[in-house]
Amino acid sequence: MSDPDLLVVGAGLIGTSIGLAAAAEGWQVAITDRDPQRAEVAAAMGAGVAVAGSVTAATLALVAVPPAEVAKVALEMLGSMPDATVTHVASVQSAPAVEVEALAGPDGQRFVGGHPIAGREVSGPTAASADLFADRPWVVCPLAASSPAAVDAVLHLVRTCRAEPVMLTAREHDELLARLSHAPQVVASALAATLTGMGSDAARLAGSGLRDTTRLADSDPAMWGQVAAANATALAAALRAVAAPLADLAERLERDPVAAGAAVHDLVARGRAGRTLLPGKHGRPAVPLASVQCLVPDSPGALARLFGDIAEEAVNVEDLRVEHAPGQPVGFAEVAVAPQDKERLVDGLRRRGWVVTEGGEEAL
Amino acid sequence: MSDPDLLVVGAGLIGTSIGLAAAAEGWQVAITDRDPQRAEVAAAMGAGVAVAGSVTAATLALVAVPPAEVAKVALEMLGSMPDATVTHVASVQSAPAVEVEALAGPDGQRFVGGHPIAGREVSGPTAASADLFADRPWVVCPLAASSPAAVDAVLHLVRTCRAEPVMLTAREHDELLARLSHAPQVVASALAATLTGMGSDAARLAGSGLRDTTRLADSDPAMWGQVAAANATALAAALRAVAAPLADLAERLERDPVAAGAAVHDLVARGRAGRTLLPGKHGRPAVPLASVQCLVPDSPGALARLFGDIAEEAVNVEDLRVEHAPGQPVGFAEVAVAPQDKERLVDGLRRRGWVVTEGGEEAL
Repeated sequence: MSDPDLLVVGAGLIGTSIGLAAAAEGWQVAITDRDPQRAEVAAAMGAGVAVAGSVTAATLALVAVPPAEVAKVALEMLGSMPDATVTHVASVQSAPAVEVEALAGPDGQRFVGGHPIAGREVSGPTAASADLFADRPWVVCPLAASSPAAVDAVLHLVRTCRAEPVMLTAREHDELLARLSHAPQVVASALAATLTGMGSDAARLAGSGLRDTTRLADSDPAMWGQVAAANATALAAALRAVAAPLADLAERLERDPVAAGAAVHDLVARGRAGRTLLPGKHGRPAVPLASVQCLVPDSPGALARLFGDIAEEAVNVEDLRVEHAPGQPVGFAEVAVAPQDKERLVDGLRRRGWVVTEGGEEAL
Repeated sequence: MSDPDLLVVGAGLIGTSIGLAAAAEGWQVAITDRDPQRAEVAAAMGAGVAVAGSVTAATLALVAVPPAEVAKVALEMLGSMPDATVTHVASVQSAPAVEVEALAGPDGQRFVGGHPIAGREVSGPTAASADLFADRPWVVCPLAASSPAAVDAVLHLVRTCRAEPVMLTAREHDELLARLSHAPQVVASALAATLTGMGSDAARLAGSGLRDTTRLADSDPAMWGQVAAANATALAAALRAVAAPLADLAERLERDPVAAGAAVHDLVARGRAGRTLLPGKHGRPAVPLASVQCLVPDSPGALARLFGDIAEEAVNVEDLRVEHAPGQPVGFAEVAVAPQDKERLVDGLRRRGWVVTEGGEEAL
């Protein structure tokens, strides 16, 4: 092949997905991996041409290797391909930036850090997808010395993957990711680690909540050891922000359970507020909706009458679920509305004779 | 109706689901709630007959109200129904047990604590299901004074709901649940609370990991304030077991990032080990499987040949996924096997000429 537009170094989930997305847009993509069979699998999936030996020229080289190896591989690429822009995809930015700045000399102009924020519930090239980055943020972290042309080359890749570029300094990125990703990982692992030594009979009493809360704990220890070492200062601060309130609550619980119960109430309320800031499944902020449940007789026109009544209350229905239990003479409609509309809707429907419930308190 | 076999007090998710399960097995069920319309919805779903006033006789009364009200309602039931066994479903056992023991006098013989461990990803009577407890543990905590007949009445209900009874003392239950449920809730909330004050642009950089880790943080603050106050000592110990290693890591990260990276590596490895003790989605312990990915040419008989070769290596296939990317001349098969079989399978397949990859390290 002619010199590729993109050389992907590392055919894991991220590297292969970027190769797929770029190749789908007509880029010439070469992909390599220290395990040649991984590169072959990625190529067979459509992520470019597998190359076993060294590549001496490419417009852009993407380093998609474990974090501790990013700087070394990036320096090799800068040295062996004198015209290539070099970027990477690691969840730490400052450490490789500092190393490249110290060792690359003027070649550092061609280096730009990057980090696509993608859902990563699976791993390996065969889980890759060209859509992995669509509408997701992709942080771009130029060095002070990065040339405008190098930044443009990386932004071109970001847009080709249909991601949304977010320009940050390496330090801003690392502080944010410590809070949003690295500390949650360590917290999930610390929680899961408390289970060791517990018998499986006892652990069987865990509900789905603990399974979700510790899902991240299945992650790769080697990877996270590298991330923690490379982002130590920011991670330390983020861990303290979680550990300190927990230790404080433990002390209060022993001193005054009733007052501590009130403190837990406040913490859970703050956690709910914090969680509304998180993006929903499709990357948009999650909008909390209120649910109103209404009994619907199994008679012709009942649902139509219900929605006529909802419309007359001038409430906008955001989501709807209708169910009918087999053998029962009624079903129910669950209507999701904006929280500020809930009380008006409940009152209005009851006034019109509907049997309505709002969820409310639960036994636990 | 004649005197019911079961009176359910509280028509939330748990109370309604128990009513549904018992009614489906032919029990006479009455259901009540301080919001009469909730009881009507539960009854319309098939969870028994809604009763608005007081009930003076039932074989078994199930108290499914918020934790702080359990003892009060249970004492009312013991007082107003002189022949009924009274149980409840709260995630704290010692506090209501102590209160009932102190105030019920000889009526305490008819009281037995209980706690069905069900997935609770949703709430409200309309989310109820007769299957909610099938094959799940249901902890039963008799008082020292509980009569064998009262214990049998509760076990009968547990089995009618197709749950598996687990006999524990109230204290054993509370210590286990502090570790498996109450501390994870508080930790998830503490993590989510660190997001408050962060701009939504910044929070947008969160991946799906943080969303899962904080899913519990959507829980009800009032409920958890009550649980924490009622299980203060055990919760304090469980919180310290998480907070102490986090604070320790924060200190190490600032002192010696490389050594701290190794400590994070060890913590993540311990977390993985702990997590294998958790039940899987269907209540059985999750068995970790190793994944082997194999390129499959799009030619007749290729898959059959692959499985013939796997069988000759005497490896048992636990799970399988076959994919074929549109427009590509090959697909791949992802084969899940017991971890101890992975290396042998990879070597065997490569020897037989297959292109095989094992996942392995990932860029992050």
